[in-house]
Amino acid sequence: MPIVRVTVIEGYEDEVRQRLARALTQAVRSTIAAPIDAITVAIEEVKPANYMRGGRTRVPGPALPDPAVLVRGFLEAMEARDLARASGFLAPEFRMTFPGGATFSSLEELIAWAKPRYRFVRKSYDRFETLAGDSGSTVYCYGTLAGEWPDGTAFSGIRFIDRFELRDGLIVGQMVWNDLAESAR
Amino acid sequence: MPIVRVTVIEGYEDEVRQRLARALTQAVRSTIAAPIDAITVAIEEVKPANYMRGGRTRVPGPALPDPAVLVRGFLEAMEARDLARASGFLAPEFRMTFPGGATFSSLEELIAWAKPRYRFVRKSYDRFETLAGDSGSTVYCYGTLAGEWPDGTAFSGIRFIDRFELRDGLIVGQMVWNDLAESAR
Amino acid sequence: MPIVRVTVIEGYEDEVRQRLARALTQAVRSTIAAPIDAITVAIEEVKPANYMRGGRTRVPGPALPDPAVLVRGFLEAMEARDLARASGFLAPEFRMTFPGGATFSSLEELIAWAKPRYRFVRKSYDRFETLAGDSGSTVYCYGTLAGEWPDGTAFSGIRFIDRFELRDGLIVGQMVWNDLAESAR
Amino acid sequence: MPIVRVTVIEGYEDEVRQRLARALTQAVRSTIAAPIDAITVAIEEVKPANYMRGGRTRVPGPALPDPAVLVRGFLEAMEARDLARASGFLAPEFRMTFPGGATFSSLEELIAWAKPRYRFVRKSYDRFETLAGDSGSTVYCYGTLAGEWPDGTAFSGIRFIDRFELRDGLIVGQMVWNDLAESAR
Amino acid sequence: MPIVRVTVIEGYEDEVRQRLARALTQAVRSTIAAPIDAITVAIEEVKPANYMRGGRTRVPGPALPDPAVLVRGFLEAMEARDLARASGFLAPEFRMTFPGGATFSSLEELIAWAKPRYRFVRKSYDRFETLAGDSGSTVYCYGTLAGEWPDGTAFSGIRFIDRFELRDGLIVGQMVWNDLAESAR
Amino acid sequence: MPIVRVTVIEGYEDEVRQRLARALTQAVRSTIAAPIDAITVAIEEVKPANYMRGGRTRVPGPALPDPAVLVRGFLEAMEARDLARASGFLAPEFRMTFPGGATFSSLEELIAWAKPRYRFVRKSYDRFETLAGDSGSTVYCYGTLAGEWPDGTAFSGIRFIDRFELRDGLIVGQMVWNDLAESAR
Repeated sequence: MPIVRVTVIEGYEDEVRQRLARALTQAVRSTIAAPIDAITVAIEEVKPANYMRGGRTRVPGPALPDPAVLVRGFLEAMEARDLARASGFLAPEFRMTFPGGATFSSLEELIAWAKPRYRFVRKSYDRFETLAGDSGSTVYCYGTLAGEWPDGTAFSGIRFIDRFELRDGLIVGQMVWNDLAESAR
Repeated sequence: MPIVRVTVIEGYEDEVRQRLARALTQAVRSTIAAPIDAITVAIEEVKPANYMRGGRTRVPGPALPDPAVLVRGFLEAMEARDLARASGFLAPEFRMTFPGGATFSSLEELIAWAKPRYRFVRKSYDRFETLAGDSGSTVYCYGTLAGEWPDGTAFSGIRFIDRFELRDGLIVGQMVWNDLAESAR
Repeated sequence: MPIVRVTVIEGYEDEVRQRLARALTQAVRSTIAAPIDAITVAIEEVKPANYMRGGRTRVPGPALPDPAVLVRGFLEAMEARDLARASGFLAPEFRMTFPGGATFSSLEELIAWAKPRYRFVRKSYDRFETLAGDSGSTVYCYGTLAGEWPDGTAFSGIRFIDRFELRDGLIVGQMVWNDLAESAR
Repeated sequence: MPIVRVTVIEGYEDEVRQRLARALTQAVRSTIAAPIDAITVAIEEVKPANYMRGGRTRVPGPALPDPAVLVRGFLEAMEARDLARASGFLAPEFRMTFPGGATFSSLEELIAWAKPRYRFVRKSYDRFETLAGDSGSTVYCYGTLAGEWPDGTAFSGIRFIDRFELRDGLIVGQMVWNDLAESAR
Repeated sequence: MPIVRVTVIEGYEDEVRQRLARALTQAVRSTIAAPIDAITVAIEEVKPANYMRGGRTRVPGPALPDPAVLVRGFLEAMEARDLARASGFLAPEFRMTFPGGATFSSLEELIAWAKPRYRFVRKSYDRFETLAGDSGSTVYCYGTLAGEWPDGTAFSGIRFIDRFELRDGLIVGQMVWNDLAESAR
Repeated sequence: MPIVRVTVIEGYEDEVRQRLARALTQAVRSTIAAPIDAITVAIEEVKPANYMRGGRTRVPGPALPDPAVLVRGFLEAMEARDLARASGFLAPEFRMTFPGGATFSSLEELIAWAKPRYRFVRKSYDRFETLAGDSGSTVYCYGTLAGEWPDGTAFSGIRFIDRFELRDGLIVGQMVWNDLAESAR
């Protein structure tokens, strides 16, 4: 039943406003068991000159990229072993944690660590899920891994999950869990 | 900068309205890089007789329990091996998936499967994260496991992550990843 | 799809606010072919001290009686031949027009005119319809008449329609059409 | 005193929005005895991408034709004996009821029935009144008839009232009362 | 904390809307000790056809000139001894009151009165302050006077304050206080 | 024509909300030449738990005392020569400026300075005017002085104007202009 109205300064793309409306719908739906069709969101846009906080007009906060789209871009660059492009998605304080608790702060470290473990690996994704926090977003994605063991034999269907933390449109952390050890037993 | 106003029928508890306001704040923050202090949410309550959709007054959708609180309740019951209490959190269609892809539809199956793997296990939680979907909520929690191997030696600090899917206040799915195999190698 | 929000000073009865919400729903529905369930009305009440027009607080306009209820009251009094009670529903400028164009300004004139036409008449109502105007309301009601001709033979099922004009809670005009002459031919 | 704000998806013509605003004003005025000048209506338009119900953008309900304009079109076609054009205003389930309770479902039946009653008839209208219902609109119009009796003598000033029921821009029913029999006595 | 939303008919210049937003911010700040950055104002514009009061669309009230800008224009014309231009700022009922209680209704009277008091005078302004009233605005300005006494000796730094009353964009009254007599002692 | 709606956390007294509504009305009236009766203000109150900025509930800013009432209190204490009470209205950084440019930071200095100028003085007030600024309020009051010269002769009807600057409910500055010197010439 709830009606949500949002006032924003005009200038955001259609895609951003729809992402906002969808996120607000889900925020309501996660709190109140209303039928989804009873949740209405209307975004009211005002001209920049029509909005004042503290007696001053304001520059609207920039739209954030869709966190899931950004994470996909990073994962594609990694799969293509295009480390330069992949690094462009990372914040300076980036840290990643892999099974067994191994932590790295650069993609090169990860590559070196993975070498004795598998020749290559490809991810198939079952789902991406994005979560809004106070200061950034979190993206979870899970699915299965396929690739080759160091001895050249193939594997596939091995479960994995990644957790990405984003701040201001850059990835600050990646955590990885998977069943590679379980399967390699 | 955005101003969010929500109209709801009166009757929700303070805790629910605050959860709603927080979820809406985060929905905005995940889309627009506004400073968090510039995001304002006001919930406007109207009497039941003051709201009509389709020319009829409506019964407000019931407040949903906080998904993270519900999942904690389930996890505590599991840790206490109180299967009856734990089952009360589960929907009839409940399914769980464990490392290696083992799937169960009852807690008893899980217990049987786990017996040769560890004597017992306790979870320490680093974080719970809740995510609103169109038809339910997802809760992620991750942290570390401590316990005893079948031979009685202790382990601790082993990473895990759980993903719970909730619908209408019941858990319909649990997915588990952890480093137990990695550690047991 | 439209969302209608109304701000009123608090103090109206539930029944009045619901009548208002229903009238607003119908106003939308008569203009836009939206599915009725997509039309939402919320009435926001403010304290008398919270409303100012022209820099002055205001006494809210009194709720009007439901025009259809008022007209029913008049018709019941007429059927019971309680002219004193019936007259209490009439404004001083009241005028009524009957088949053939006969006009009266008092109930007594009507009674005299009707005497040679029928011994008595009772109305069965198919429908009451109320219509909002700028300065008052109009009520239509139609159905069938049953009664006795002057010679004592009974009649029934004779179509009629009445149109009532109301201003400030009083009836200022009544217009009557029926098939009595058609039937009496 | 009431303030009415309506949120609609942009795209309706000026004429439609003004019809909507007027209908809302009258809806308020029929319930609360506020001075008409104290009733304010503001229609707020949002872009199609800015409105979501159930997490999905919506196509706005089409504007309905002004019911009174539509009924006038039908009546003009009837007076011009342009049955083809007149039939274009009618829904398949159309039914009409005339004095004495005669009912027809086609204009041709009506013409045949009327032949022995008058050579021709023209309507002068005193007033059209439109009423919004949950699923459609009702139009009342009344005034006087002029024409010729079967014997060629002229008549005029004979009272009539018509009631039209509309659904989705088509006429589904017409009910007619008049003083022709009264006058022909 | 307060959120102020204003609905106006579109058509006002950016400058006017910002003046309005600033005036509203200050109105809040003068009543509630909220941090200025917590006071938000959003002006929502509707098309002329989207606004009705009393069932009629309305011509928006014209924007008023900035009262302080208008008063400055008058003071500049006075200093340039351009009485024709200065008179253009005055309403027919204009009256001015000078130290000692001398009152004039024309600029010529003032000039004559001032002649034995000083050869000429120039104003330096410390501040202009504008105040909104129910039917017009008041502008205060204060600062110091410099000029020459009748005997040709110079003076400067003499305190003054002027109070201007404006109605519908014209000055209806001016009151003047200063320390000229104090200094001339 | 403008409609002003304000959302505040509930808890302010009626008097404060009405002062707020009046100040907002005047803010509109000073910018747009709308008829005063066309300016509508509605204050919408939400519960403390229903308002969040930055994801946190907020304590509403305290209501400020009516600045004119506060200044009157100070002036009454001064006239009663109750310096202790008068000092209670003053901020530590208080400064006052009197005719001729004399400045004091304590009431005692003022008393000493005034002694050779007049035996005593009483103020009659024509008007108090309050003005909202970004960080405080300004109060102007003007009228006439009556009292006795040092030689005991009486005076009256001598024009004066005071300007008070207030911050957070205390007076930080007073500026005084009057015609005492003009009259004493």
